[in-house]
Amino acid sequence: MRQATIREVATRAGVSVATVSRVLNGYPFVSDDARRRVVDAVEEFGYRPDVAARSMRTGTTRAVGLVVSDFSNPLFSTIAKGADTVLGPHGYSLVLANSMSDRVRESEAMAALRQRRVDGLIVAVADERARGLADRLDAFTASVLIDREVPASNADAVCSEHASGIAEALAYLARLGHRRVALVAGSKRQLGSRARIESFLAERPRLGLDEDDSLLVTGELSPETGYLAATRLLALEDPPTALVAGNNQLVVGAISALRDLGLRIPDDVSLVGCDDTDLTRLHDPPIDVVSRDLLALGRTAAELLLARLLDPAAPPRRVTLPSTFVPRASSASLSRLEEVAGR
Amino acid sequence: MRQATIREVATRAGVSVATVSRVLNGYPFVSDDARRRVVDAVEEFGYRPDVAARSMRTGTTRAVGLVVSDFSNPLFSTIAKGADTVLGPHGYSLVLANSMSDRVRESEAMAALRQRRVDGLIVAVADERARGLADRLDAFTASVLIDREVPASNADAVCSEHASGIAEALAYLARLGHRRVALVAGSKRQLGSRARIESFLAERPRLGLDEDDSLLVTGELSPETGYLAATRLLALEDPPTALVAGNNQLVVGAISALRDLGLRIPDDVSLVGCDDTDLTRLHDPPIDVVSRDLLALGRTAAELLLARLLDPAAPPRRVTLPSTFVPRASSASLSRLEEVAGR
Repeated sequence: MRQATIREVATRAGVSVATVSRVLNGYPFVSDDARRRVVDAVEEFGYRPDVAARSMRTGTTRAVGLVVSDFSNPLFSTIAKGADTVLGPHGYSLVLANSMSDRVRESEAMAALRQRRVDGLIVAVADERARGLADRLDAFTASVLIDREVPASNADAVCSEHASGIAEALAYLARLGHRRVALVAGSKRQLGSRARIESFLAERPRLGLDEDDSLLVTGELSPETGYLAATRLLALEDPPTALVAGNNQLVVGAISALRDLGLRIPDDVSLVGCDDTDLTRLHDPPIDVVSRDLLALGRTAAELLLARLLDPAAPPRRVTLPSTFVPRASSASLSRLEEVAGR
Repeated sequence: MRQATIREVATRAGVSVATVSRVLNGYPFVSDDARRRVVDAVEEFGYRPDVAARSMRTGTTRAVGLVVSDFSNPLFSTIAKGADTVLGPHGYSLVLANSMSDRVRESEAMAALRQRRVDGLIVAVADERARGLADRLDAFTASVLIDREVPASNADAVCSEHASGIAEALAYLARLGHRRVALVAGSKRQLGSRARIESFLAERPRLGLDEDDSLLVTGELSPETGYLAATRLLALEDPPTALVAGNNQLVVGAISALRDLGLRIPDDVSLVGCDDTDLTRLHDPPIDVVSRDLLALGRTAAELLLARLLDPAAPPRRVTLPSTFVPRASSASLSRLEEVAGR
């Protein structure tokens, strides 16, 4: 059977060849009605433009690698969705790779994406100090870091303003009378966790909070670490009256631990999370969080990547998006609680 | 600079050429130590096998399209993770596409994936009855449906045993004395929702449950539908004493609605969800759910796809995985509640 031409598709759909091309390449500014007619005509004719030939001609694959620790973490799947909403209309697709936070797997994934000749990379690297990382990032025409910094590389980056969110949360807890506030966080080898830790350490003396080393626990960004850290902190001789869980997975573990210890939120211990989820919003009581717009983070990563593809020699750009503290009902006033206890 | 050969990489890593090849292709059965030495040597030499050439030689891209309504839904991101754990070791990557439950967007996404010459497709179609769907599915060498059936196509499918899970949940509620049980579910044009609805309608007379039409509400699989449906159901003159939310997004909306109505779970209304999440596990009280292994669903989809690539002419296969009812603390005994009320 003879392959239909783009002109025949356009005639059947009653639109111009340019409109067919726009629809096939996923560009915006086509009416829903025209789009539908083009799709129907394309299906009817089984029309299939030779994109492989176009790729070889233009040297682009219209594919962007996405390397994250674990795609099933809503943090990353929401960022991916945000990126897809920008990349899709330009005809780019995301190719997924999970590193499971392992340096070797991550390096393998990046090598595999280069072999696929993806046009660019969006990545939340497991370890900013991994040997050879800057070279691996710069081997891509365009690479964008999410919440990471690798100063030796030319990668662009989109980050969140973690420090101010943590500072706001600590100031709120201090106003409620808390002095023993603990932070559970990830590794210092990732900008996000490092910024949270540094903000915690800088704000403590400023706010008159206790400065015990025991009140800072770091580890993997997992429910397991959150559970163990919360359990260990609350077993201290002088336990914290408030916990800040520095990640959406850590807060899952912290909530489980408090439940297993029979401790009520906020009557027995106050809890603040980082990054909003259905759980933090709908927990009873709803959990105070340091929140940020994850879809915007993904959209911005995609915008940086597209800009970089247009101008590969431009100096690296770093965009920082805000984070805000959202108080709800998971932190109690210590003086009020002491009154209740004293009655 | 001369490109290093695979032999030079093997010599530097102190392993065989076959082992280097295994590592580069992501196959298992390589010791962590050997893998690390190979990755180091590959990085040192900047070695890059010509996979584009291999693709053209073999006619495969080692890419698999994944088309779902919204991959930021943990249902789909967890399925994607499960599929990736099987595909990755075989050197295949997932290319992501969101249909946002729109037939035209889904059709465009599938056309774009064909243009990319992906080797196969894993898809949870928005509408099983969409015109031309079977042809679109069969245009791929291998396509696997997730929780859908399209009898006219040759696609393989992996499904969950929804009916038995819903039947177990309803029997449990009936034993607790509930007679007015409502189901909020998605569209009948998707196997999963259809199976839940059919099981609900079949079990009601068997269990002596009220058979009002008003107790079944269908719509989009979204928190918004869950919220509106729960609100409407509880405003009925004779409202249900128990709600079954037939999807992980619907339960989010139902919990929000009950909170806004000032109704307590389970004292004022019992609630059962479908598909377990951090929210259902850690809600206070924890929510009873019809649960299934989503990673296994993704793994099975990938296994079906790889088997189909090896034997494209084999008859279509359908694998059904179990679902189980997990009772927790979100359903109350009606007789007990009436006793309390009567005191």
